[in-house]
Amino acid sequence: MSQPATTLAAGGAGSSVGVVETRYLDLPEPVRLDCGRELHPVRVAYETYGALSPRRDNVILVCHALSGDAHAAGLAKAPPEESARDGFGAEGHGKGLGWWDGMIGPGKAFDTDRFFVVSTNLLGGCRGTTGPSSPDPATGRPYGPDFPVITVADMVRTQRAFLDALGVERLAAVAGGSLGGMQALEWAVRYPGQVDAVVVIASTHALHPQGVAWNAIARESILRDPAWQGGRYYGTGRAPDAGMGIGRMVGHITYLSAPALEAKFGRRLQSSGDLRYTITEPEFEVESYLRHQADSFVRRFDANTYLYTSRALTYFDLAREHGGGSLARALGGVEARTLLIAFSSDWLYPPSASREIEQALRGLGKPVELQVIEAPYGHDCFLLEEARQTPVIRRFLERGSS
Amino acid sequence: MSQPATTLAAGGAGSSVGVVETRYLDLPEPVRLDCGRELHPVRVAYETYGALSPRRDNVILVCHALSGDAHAAGLAKAPPEESARDGFGAEGHGKGLGWWDGMIGPGKAFDTDRFFVVSTNLLGGCRGTTGPSSPDPATGRPYGPDFPVITVADMVRTQRAFLDALGVERLAAVAGGSLGGMQALEWAVRYPGQVDAVVVIASTHALHPQGVAWNAIARESILRDPAWQGGRYYGTGRAPDAGMGIGRMVGHITYLSAPALEAKFGRRLQSSGDLRYTITEPEFEVESYLRHQADSFVRRFDANTYLYTSRALTYFDLAREHGGGSLARALGGVEARTLLIAFSSDWLYPPSASREIEQALRGLGKPVELQVIEAPYGHDCFLLEEARQTPVIRRFLERGSS
Repeated sequence: MSQPATTLAAGGAGSSVGVVETRYLDLPEPVRLDCGRELHPVRVAYETYGALSPRRDNVILVCHALSGDAHAAGLAKAPPEESARDGFGAEGHGKGLGWWDGMIGPGKAFDTDRFFVVSTNLLGGCRGTTGPSSPDPATGRPYGPDFPVITVADMVRTQRAFLDALGVERLAAVAGGSLGGMQALEWAVRYPGQVDAVVVIASTHALHPQGVAWNAIARESILRDPAWQGGRYYGTGRAPDAGMGIGRMVGHITYLSAPALEAKFGRRLQSSGDLRYTITEPEFEVESYLRHQADSFVRRFDANTYLYTSRALTYFDLAREHGGGSLARALGGVEARTLLIAFSSDWLYPPSASREIEQALRGLGKPVELQVIEAPYGHDCFLLEEARQTPVIRRFLERGSS
Repeated sequence: MSQPATTLAAGGAGSSVGVVETRYLDLPEPVRLDCGRELHPVRVAYETYGALSPRRDNVILVCHALSGDAHAAGLAKAPPEESARDGFGAEGHGKGLGWWDGMIGPGKAFDTDRFFVVSTNLLGGCRGTTGPSSPDPATGRPYGPDFPVITVADMVRTQRAFLDALGVERLAAVAGGSLGGMQALEWAVRYPGQVDAVVVIASTHALHPQGVAWNAIARESILRDPAWQGGRYYGTGRAPDAGMGIGRMVGHITYLSAPALEAKFGRRLQSSGDLRYTITEPEFEVESYLRHQADSFVRRFDANTYLYTSRALTYFDLAREHGGGSLARALGGVEARTLLIAFSSDWLYPPSASREIEQALRGLGKPVELQVIEAPYGHDCFLLEEARQTPVIRRFLERGSS
């Protein structure tokens, strides 16, 4: 299972896990879903970094966010056209580099000299794991809108089944940011005896109503694009790129903070001179940035996966799912140590949500640590503030092994 | 010019200006625009409330925001299908009531027992004033994308020309919220000798980059709707309702605060029971609210007007237009007394922008008053917090006459 750690000359703090190839595993059994349906077959795209210990007790599962994939670290053997690394952090980032490369590798936060790090593409994805663009065995055509509506719990069930197939019973840790953090929390609640620690970054136990609204708007913009065609756009030569682009623009602004936009773009115009008096063309730099982000995203992402994943993350609600409305009750069975990291300027997954989790766990007498990092980049901090997260995470993981 | 003040039984604090009919005036001369073009003919839709004094010195011009119209107060003689009153405030608000009815009338903030209040639909509008849906004299068909790109200054020039035609030289005050506040500021800078006071509510001297981005996303969602047809959708039986609906949803969330959404909707589901596992239907109450707001808006508003108005308000930049980049220089010639009102929870037009204007004016030794009202409803406060604005505005306007 281990991956050769070819150190790259270009490696920054810590070194690189080297060149990595995404692999695929077909689950032997159907996955039972919250909605009542079963999904079969399910293929899982994954990568691993580091070496599995003989006792199989050094496994860290890394969970990605809405637009990520299994390629979390190292250099892809076959670099994609567009990086899965988004936003500010994408600039100057090699296209083949994993989305969390700064965090995973020898000497990094998730230290592959010690841990065997496993990263999977989530259920419903479009980067190798079964999702709405996968063939429906009933028809031989892509599922499209016939794909079952999935939840974060379903993603976690799929990861559990995948690790079973890999022969991994316990996890030293589950870690993720944003939607990835939701998966980590779900792991801690759903499989309490099988997770030693969870690292939940810029995430929440339940998205607040404004976040629900932003996600609804992004989905609506896809649904209202005539090219969506009721979700059966595969093979038609048309895809709801226009609508998904709008959704992505909304996402981008919610991932950033107002001060970050001010610092990066201000009100600078595209043309060095004066106004061009145009309705259809970008006039301000920030307008041009949004178009660019939308255009590059639609080249690499499937609109139905966006819909299903966005729906799953708005559904996620630990208190409702596991506690009859009470977060404390939902967390009552957690056995893992919990590290929560939040960012002061993140208004989509605000520190207050992490604080609620911290207080609930503390009230239950469970080991929990909350670090709120003062940083200006909003939700995107979880991908950008690697240097400041690294010592916090390393210390937390080291304490577990002492 | 005065309007019979038929007191309505339904009047709240203060009483109603009664039943009002929108009137129209064709400007005698072309309007010269910032983009270099001239516009002719220009028709202005307007309403007036109260009586013009013999000395014509009691005129208050009220300027509306992006989605408003000339019907600011009283009960419309012909009530429209959809109220121009938006958001939270729309509920329980009669369809024929003016969008600022709580503020304009006998005994109200803009007291029609004393002032002659004039309200016009802005240039580029779709509610009676010449805009992109008006016939282009060159072709006889609606302008569509051939309508010139307009600015806030162009809106104010049009109001100036309209008041000339009415025989009104000086204004006792110009007042408006949001884009309406921009117009009030532009009046103070552009026609310093002709305005005694300006009331600038929940507005700014230049929209911050995040606001520029939200507006860009709203416009993009219209531009990317195939039904927009390059702006020439009139008479085709199709209009970019889907795209404008998305834009309106974005607008709505930016007009509200996260805590207001939390208080009003929380994470309550549409169906009383559990999740319905649907991608296409609203599942949370806030999702349903957004659809409703979008649907009712597109029934009453023209997408091209949205595009042009949104462009104008993102262009607005007092320092760039009038001060070579310096706000103080731009405000150097202001003679009017200035009242600024901002709302603590307004993140689209935050109090900080009003504070910048206040400090610039104060530094110039000009009379200015800033009131930041603690209120939870975000930008929408300017339409909702009428009771708390009223004494502030009344006191400010009274001081002017002493």
